[in-house]
Amino acid sequence: MVKRICIIGAGPSGLAQLRSFQSAAEQGVEIPEIVCYEKQADWGGLWRYTWRTGVDEHCNPCHGSMYRYLWSNGPKEGLEFADYTFEDHFGKAIASYPPRAVLFDYIEGRVKKAGVRKWIRFNTVVRDVRTVEGGFEVTARDCDSDTETREIFDHVIVASGHFSFPNVPHYPGFETFNGRILHAHDFRDAREFEGKDLLLLGTSYSAEDIGSQCWKYGCKSVTVAHRTAPMGFDWPDNWQEVPKLERVDRKTAYFSDGTSKDVDAIILCTGYRHHFPFLPDDLRLKTTNRLASSDLYKGVVYAGNPDLFYLGMQDQWFTFNMFDAQAWWVRDVILGRIALPDAATMEADWKQRQADEDVLADDYACIAYQGAYTLELIAETDYPTFDVEAANQAFYEWKKHKKKGIMEFRDNGYVSPMTGTKAPPHHTVWKDALDDSLEDYLKT
Amino acid sequence: MVKRICIIGAGPSGLAQLRSFQSAAEQGVEIPEIVCYEKQADWGGLWRYTWRTGVDEHCNPCHGSMYRYLWSNGPKEGLEFADYTFEDHFGKAIASYPPRAVLFDYIEGRVKKAGVRKWIRFNTVVRDVRTVEGGFEVTARDCDSDTETREIFDHVIVASGHFSFPNVPHYPGFETFNGRILHAHDFRDAREFEGKDLLLLGTSYSAEDIGSQCWKYGCKSVTVAHRTAPMGFDWPDNWQEVPKLERVDRKTAYFSDGTSKDVDAIILCTGYRHHFPFLPDDLRLKTTNRLASSDLYKGVVYAGNPDLFYLGMQDQWFTFNMFDAQAWWVRDVILGRIALPDAATMEADWKQRQADEDVLADDYACIAYQGAYTLELIAETDYPTFDVEAANQAFYEWKKHKKKGIMEFRDNGYVSPMTGTKAPPHHTVWKDALDDSLEDYLKT
Repeated sequence: MVKRICIIGAGPSGLAQLRSFQSAAEQGVEIPEIVCYEKQADWGGLWRYTWRTGVDEHCNPCHGSMYRYLWSNGPKEGLEFADYTFEDHFGKAIASYPPRAVLFDYIEGRVKKAGVRKWIRFNTVVRDVRTVEGGFEVTARDCDSDTETREIFDHVIVASGHFSFPNVPHYPGFETFNGRILHAHDFRDAREFEGKDLLLLGTSYSAEDIGSQCWKYGCKSVTVAHRTAPMGFDWPDNWQEVPKLERVDRKTAYFSDGTSKDVDAIILCTGYRHHFPFLPDDLRLKTTNRLASSDLYKGVVYAGNPDLFYLGMQDQWFTFNMFDAQAWWVRDVILGRIALPDAATMEADWKQRQADEDVLADDYACIAYQGAYTLELIAETDYPTFDVEAANQAFYEWKKHKKKGIMEFRDNGYVSPMTGTKAPPHHTVWKDALDDSLEDYLKT
Repeated sequence: MVKRICIIGAGPSGLAQLRSFQSAAEQGVEIPEIVCYEKQADWGGLWRYTWRTGVDEHCNPCHGSMYRYLWSNGPKEGLEFADYTFEDHFGKAIASYPPRAVLFDYIEGRVKKAGVRKWIRFNTVVRDVRTVEGGFEVTARDCDSDTETREIFDHVIVASGHFSFPNVPHYPGFETFNGRILHAHDFRDAREFEGKDLLLLGTSYSAEDIGSQCWKYGCKSVTVAHRTAPMGFDWPDNWQEVPKLERVDRKTAYFSDGTSKDVDAIILCTGYRHHFPFLPDDLRLKTTNRLASSDLYKGVVYAGNPDLFYLGMQDQWFTFNMFDAQAWWVRDVILGRIALPDAATMEADWKQRQADEDVLADDYACIAYQGAYTLELIAETDYPTFDVEAANQAFYEWKKHKKKGIMEFRDNGYVSPMTGTKAPPHHTVWKDALDDSLEDYLKT
């Protein structure tokens, strides 16, 4: 009997899984019956922009965390598909930090060509998964018809992402702050904050990038409060880093060094949580955001039930091509090409990976670590191998370029690990490029 | 064997249900074992204010739709508990349109006195309900410990409300609007909109009240677009009603009469949806927001499975005391004091109620209809009966007062249907009362 597999989510990870099976089918391999549930109306996951915040048109929590004018905050050379290069897609080399619409187009190009859309049930949210005799019972609601299905699968692959459920801390006085408080997840249009004094909490990518955007689109000032250390970039004059927020009172924010600042809005750049509202205790991944997730053999097989897989649950330097490496590897387990070891070996694997991660000296070592992990998986499947060292190199340079000029780093270009081509410069420097459309970006 | 009952939600309806059983227990009646699941950290449902929007601290969709400075938009004389009057609680008569904190205090006072908190599991979200041998299997997640329970109940009472999941329409250009777009559900502090030009969509209570608040706290202008008819109140000079929104372009909104207006924010006052993410097809209520809900015998018994009940799912003029009437009635079904008829009779009942509703001439007739429904239920239980006609009268006068002065109607007082006392005037007229605290309100 043909196996049935369930993929939850049609974002970059879920699409990688679909493409992996389609690639095998193309080679004449008999593949399982596939159902991919996607709660949004279209594919692309996070890369699908939505103006909505809070809950979506079907009353499900909004998946989208991306905002208008978002440009990739890392070099595209680090995330290129090995089986579908930027040059394949656009017919020419393009600059290294594309806006969202360009990356969405690229992601979509591959899966359109592969013809995997037929496997996806859109507007369908998975409501429950449980283990039953014969596999997994998956309950999903078709939000268009408002009716449910309950189907049995041999495998479930969770590809629902981990940048959709915000981590939202409370600070004293938030109840009575006289302005808007929002999480980065709900940030949409920087122009809303033109002329405003902003307070951002957090020191990771969201703070860096949302602050930079608001600066680019004319906010009055950016104040970033940190709990441990400042980001330390060479910020513009109207940007300051301050220590921990203690409390707010009406419009005034008070910091742990005794200073204060009147602000119009507070943007919580406080990260995301691994959250799986559809999974019961025995199937639910519980991990912090780290390179070696807990409970995942080879970073993908759930130790508690090896018929269940998770994609892309790691903290990420590598993204699209790492998801591919994972998807191809999971596919080969399902196809019986890769055998899983016993439970003790699987547990030892993720613990060893965490031990290795724990001694990494710096971000450069982390990048190399994740590059090596990606290569390890690729080596065990037929996913086209690539020059991971060149991708690492793009990341290393990116970090140096950020240090050199946080508002200028996107004006640099890197060498593609797939084609060896060096990216041309974009026609306009990032800080002056207010149009983030695909059409404008591709102009030469 | 003692029955086990599950109540979903500890807002006004769920608390009414708890109080109804406690009232029976107080009289020496043996009552079922009760578990009330509440996803929030405290009771009060909608009446518990939260600064959060989107998802809450446990990644569940935020329940709260209330905003700062919210004052009751209807007279308190229409919602008074028959078993616990405002005079009982505050020790004196108070004015007719209390702010949220005052009403929360009142709701809480009754249940604190009754001692029902022990039955509630806070921070616990119901994830699934299904029918099994012996009743209902309820899966709930304790969000504090991040673990689940699965328990069997003889009855489930859904008291999760229907003003928490927003209905959010899309209009062309929303994707590229250069300001904030939010649903009324996410509105929190009117001062955020000081000096701003606002566009509100919708003509019901949210539009009326959020617009009035923003006016009171200094927005620059309010424009309300309607699809069918304007609200027609005597608005302030910086408030206009316009026909249907056609589209927006950057900051400009275009209406169906060819006019346009530049706006800073768009607030969607477009209502709420009956949404039960935890219920499967065979148990899920599907009804529009109306006085006689579909599929509910006597407005509370689910026709598809008469061991399942719904509280407060109607469109509402009457609220707290109607929930009481429903809760006492449901309690008596569960206690075996009231027998349910056969399925055909139950179906005929809700259809007849809808037919009766369909011919109601105006809002006055609707108020009387819902008053009569409340009285019908009360007559069949031991809930203290009251002068429903006096409550109707308060509603009738309220409507007239709104017509007379939409920014002044809250300065009126009405006669309590419970005590016969006429409410004293508040110390400050509503438009000048910027402090919405309990302390300030109770000053005399």
